[in-house]
Amino acid sequence: MNNPIAEIFSQGEEVITGQVVDTNAAWLSQQLVDLGFSIARHTAVGDKLADLVGLLTEISQRADFCICTGGLGPTIDDLTAEAVSIAFNCPLILDEQALAQIEAYFASRQKKMADINRKQAYFPRGAIPIDNAWGTAPGFAIKKHQSWFVFVPGVPTEMRNMFRTHIKKQLQTRFFLKQDQLFTIKSVGVGESDLQQKINDFLLPDNVQLSFRATSEEVQTKLLFPAGIEAKVCVDQLIELIGDAVFTCDQPAKAGLSFLQVIDQLMTDKNLTLSIQETATQGLIAAKCIGFDWLHSSSYQQFEHSAQVDLAQLAIEVANRLKQKNNTDLVLVQMYQGNKTQFHDKQQSIVIYNVLLTPEGIVKNTHILAGPIKRKQNQAAIRGLDLLRRFLQKKCH
Amino acid sequence: MNNPIAEIFSQGEEVITGQVVDTNAAWLSQQLVDLGFSIARHTAVGDKLADLVGLLTEISQRADFCICTGGLGPTIDDLTAEAVSIAFNCPLILDEQALAQIEAYFASRQKKMADINRKQAYFPRGAIPIDNAWGTAPGFAIKKHQSWFVFVPGVPTEMRNMFRTHIKKQLQTRFFLKQDQLFTIKSVGVGESDLQQKINDFLLPDNVQLSFRATSEEVQTKLLFPAGIEAKVCVDQLIELIGDAVFTCDQPAKAGLSFLQVIDQLMTDKNLTLSIQETATQGLIAAKCIGFDWLHSSSYQQFEHSAQVDLAQLAIEVANRLKQKNNTDLVLVQMYQGNKTQFHDKQQSIVIYNVLLTPEGIVKNTHILAGPIKRKQNQAAIRGLDLLRRFLQKKCH
Repeated sequence: MNNPIAEIFSQGEEVITGQVVDTNAAWLSQQLVDLGFSIARHTAVGDKLADLVGLLTEISQRADFCICTGGLGPTIDDLTAEAVSIAFNCPLILDEQALAQIEAYFASRQKKMADINRKQAYFPRGAIPIDNAWGTAPGFAIKKHQSWFVFVPGVPTEMRNMFRTHIKKQLQTRFFLKQDQLFTIKSVGVGESDLQQKINDFLLPDNVQLSFRATSEEVQTKLLFPAGIEAKVCVDQLIELIGDAVFTCDQPAKAGLSFLQVIDQLMTDKNLTLSIQETATQGLIAAKCIGFDWLHSSSYQQFEHSAQVDLAQLAIEVANRLKQKNNTDLVLVQMYQGNKTQFHDKQQSIVIYNVLLTPEGIVKNTHILAGPIKRKQNQAAIRGLDLLRRFLQKKCH
Repeated sequence: MNNPIAEIFSQGEEVITGQVVDTNAAWLSQQLVDLGFSIARHTAVGDKLADLVGLLTEISQRADFCICTGGLGPTIDDLTAEAVSIAFNCPLILDEQALAQIEAYFASRQKKMADINRKQAYFPRGAIPIDNAWGTAPGFAIKKHQSWFVFVPGVPTEMRNMFRTHIKKQLQTRFFLKQDQLFTIKSVGVGESDLQQKINDFLLPDNVQLSFRATSEEVQTKLLFPAGIEAKVCVDQLIELIGDAVFTCDQPAKAGLSFLQVIDQLMTDKNLTLSIQETATQGLIAAKCIGFDWLHSSSYQQFEHSAQVDLAQLAIEVANRLKQKNNTDLVLVQMYQGNKTQFHDKQQSIVIYNVLLTPEGIVKNTHILAGPIKRKQNQAAIRGLDLLRRFLQKKCH
């Protein structure tokens, strides 16, 4: 049996004109995926009654479940209940209990309830009110055709609390939900397309969904196994295939670690300290390590070197000097070859040399970086930190 | 005549499952509203061919313009071009020029192009390719019924650069757009609600729309005047009212300067140099100044000071030492009061002391910073840079 299909519907002029980023849709999607829904669509519309009515009618014909945020406030631009009453053909009726709760909300804050707040106690006939202890606007649930709809306010704290406290439980009773198993293999140093090339010949079971995602820090290889299927052997083989670039793999239903959290954990466990000399990154390696006590110092000095200088050798000398000065267990030094123009110009590239001085000797890497200057800066920081990560995970060559 | 109707369409499993928040939709909506479009809907779907085809068909029947992000990558889950070819009934054809550009992208990074990247050079017949100098995936534009579609990658930097460089101009030729006059007063150092309080009593003309937007660097006060109305006097009065916190005001239809660009321009014009000593920011001030030649050096040293030490005084001493050592025109030193727990705990606050040594003497400021550690770090960087900005704009007291 397939997962039930859910849609997310966001209402508000501020969303549709881009004044606010719709973080509710992402949050709700994650919750619903974790519960065992498949998400088919997110849709946002503004405060136009006809748009709302049209969209509600559409969704009632295709989804098993829809959660709608926004439009439950007291003002004239809050039209959701009215739109539901038109789309699903059920008049608005006053709910005395909801009215009492809204009055109590104001009383507890020693404020007088404005007349317009009465509007929030009117629900479409047949709707089940959902209590909102975190604000004035109660939500409600209603069924149309085969589709369940839940309406909640757009204020993130109110919406999230109502979801956790009331809606989640209702969904688990109302739907038959099987939770899929999501594994996320996280790597640094291999591009998205090279990664796919690498695992192209690997035969995945038919019912496993494979996808890739690149962030500014890492590439994620995601594997979605249906509930109840043995996944571990297959995931381990893929990790083996991707190789040293893998720094962690997130397990199903567990909070995973980020690239920097993996490094932090290893540095802390091994009780090591670090100092850094930055060039192309200009402070960004240190800035990314905010809050980590093992970073003792970092410095940046403007510099430009001709191609004649052996930069890997120079980096080793600088590292030794820093070791003398700071006496940290590890010293990371980054140099780059390239002039100002090559660094600034997004069409040109620079070469970075990372050197890490460790109690067991020196490890190093070299990379060509291209693109706009901020991309070069960020990539240089990731490559520097990845040298450290590989040393800590014993993946240096 | 009404504004043309636009829709935003986001494609990607990571969006629909809530792994990433769709910031593209909000950014594009703002751009399109500024250009003179009305936005009717945002829709996001995952990587299912049938969903993509269905949505493209729907939109082609109701919108004047649609911009679609995502699904242009090289991997098997990137299905946008294929969906367009099915929905609009036009086969995919290899574009030799686009292929050459993708090959050049890899060549400039001294990498071999993977075979699967060839896919990115195939476009639906009749499509006009849109150059992408910031990544491998070119975009394209195509017309169906009365509706223009533009397809761009989902990576925000690529999408934004392509919009600014190519798409914006094309839209201005293709559509009859009446541009309202948008002024954006940008300030640092006054919160959104304080700002609103400040200008509450100011009587704006009835047809002027006022809105606020806070980014991690600045607060924007936006004033939208209808086309043809005299705006300057009113805008100048508001700038006066907000005061020294204003660092620039973006004029209608002109590319405005960011906070850092304003500082860069002033430093360059005045031909000044700077060195920095960072604490709470841990390299972030320097990292934000990437590409600016006037920054000579920066350093970070782990430190913790008791409340007994006079940190403003200590900062002045450090600044004088740095001046001796580096001989830059300006020296910025930041210290903070607070222990590790206060820095990490989002419920607790720290106090930062910024001191700027200038040829005309010392200027300084002090701020209390609260929130999660990364917010404290970023706010500390902004406050440090704002001291520099105020000195350069002669707004120090």
